[in-house]
Amino acid sequence: MSAVSPVRKVGRPRAVARPRSGLSPREEILAAAAELFTTHGYAATTTRALAERAGIRQASLYHYFGGKEDLLAELLESTVRPSLEAVGALAGATPEERLWELCHRDARLLCSGPYNLGALYLLPEVRTERFAGFRGMREELKGVYGRLLAETPAGAALEPADRELRTDLLFALIEGVILIRRDTPGELAAGVIETLAAATADAALRLAGVGDRQGLGGSGGDAAGPA
Amino acid sequence: MSAVSPVRKVGRPRAVARPRSGLSPREEILAAAAELFTTHGYAATTTRALAERAGIRQASLYHYFGGKEDLLAELLESTVRPSLEAVGALAGATPEERLWELCHRDARLLCSGPYNLGALYLLPEVRTERFAGFRGMREELKGVYGRLLAETPAGAALEPADRELRTDLLFALIEGVILIRRDTPGELAAGVIETLAAATADAALRLAGVGDRQGLGGSGGDAAGPA
Repeated sequence: MSAVSPVRKVGRPRAVARPRSGLSPREEILAAAAELFTTHGYAATTTRALAERAGIRQASLYHYFGGKEDLLAELLESTVRPSLEAVGALAGATPEERLWELCHRDARLLCSGPYNLGALYLLPEVRTERFAGFRGMREELKGVYGRLLAETPAGAALEPADRELRTDLLFALIEGVILIRRDTPGELAAGVIETLAAATADAALRLAGVGDRQGLGGSGGDAAGPA
Repeated sequence: MSAVSPVRKVGRPRAVARPRSGLSPREEILAAAAELFTTHGYAATTTRALAERAGIRQASLYHYFGGKEDLLAELLESTVRPSLEAVGALAGATPEERLWELCHRDARLLCSGPYNLGALYLLPEVRTERFAGFRGMREELKGVYGRLLAETPAGAALEPADRELRTDLLFALIEGVILIRRDTPGELAAGVIETLAAATADAALRLAGVGDRQGLGGSGGDAAGPA
């Protein structure tokens, strides 16, 4: 058949080579995976389509990555690793301020970048052993939220089971940025990202029962400035 | 090939007939779709596998549903329709109480049932025209949250853009139950569902800036009793 078959699915991009971008081949492959996994679907994306989109040969893809699972693991970990690495550098003087800073950084990470990588969290494949590394990093990050909450007077006053539930809700609110972002396809403008990240961090502190930014000392508020 | 190919993926259920359950064929098909879409993946599930799992012939499946898309639409709408239908019956005397009730019902719906159907919200397919009906129902429900928030003194005091953002965050917290549930595979016990739903509704009210259940009149608290 030489005729192009009619495309029924809206928003399904054809796997054509991306324009030259100055990225390394490894980065080109990750960018192609980020795009195709979030717009076309993980199960529906072949390594052949990934290679075409990245403008390389399929054999070259396997030079950089073991396959689709490795690419998914790398993309998932990229949504958690920067927040984990930032934990030691939180500059707030009080636990409330450090909690606000972490929420702000983490929410900003999830709403940044051209594709909503957090949407990949809910793939059934993520429950398999291959993604235990990602799940462990995400648990570690949730643990940091729990410890910061426990350091606040409001968090310290809770029974352990209630504090655990409140940590789950706090973490779900931050990750909820993924659900808000889904309603706005495409890349968010820098101003929108900042507004959403700061509002999410404010909401997280109210949810946690430790007040909001207005109630904090100086540095929590300062951290809300342009990145 | 008569040999069964080795199954690499952990947690991929074989499509075998479900035990007899007293469900109608239509309900059997929906139950099979709920299970296979959430555990095996939407793209990876064939109508043949659905029919096998439901214990019917493939032709019979098409007697009840037009195909996979119709099944996905029906499952998605089932996560929103009951909350929308309940809006008129909210019994709270104040907007805060009605908001708490709605949050509680909605969170309870999302954490009930054997499978985490909300996890299907993030499929790229849901952005296509076929699912405009579901997206419209979900927008309508978010609109109800926005109006209830606007009726509270705290919500009324916000600028429209801030109120919209706070509505987005409130709705994301409720839908965040999907993200919490993902960490606990399988069906949740009734007590866990009730604790999570009530804690989510309490957290939603703190997030909205309208206090929590302790600050409400009687009926908000009463609504937290066993369903």
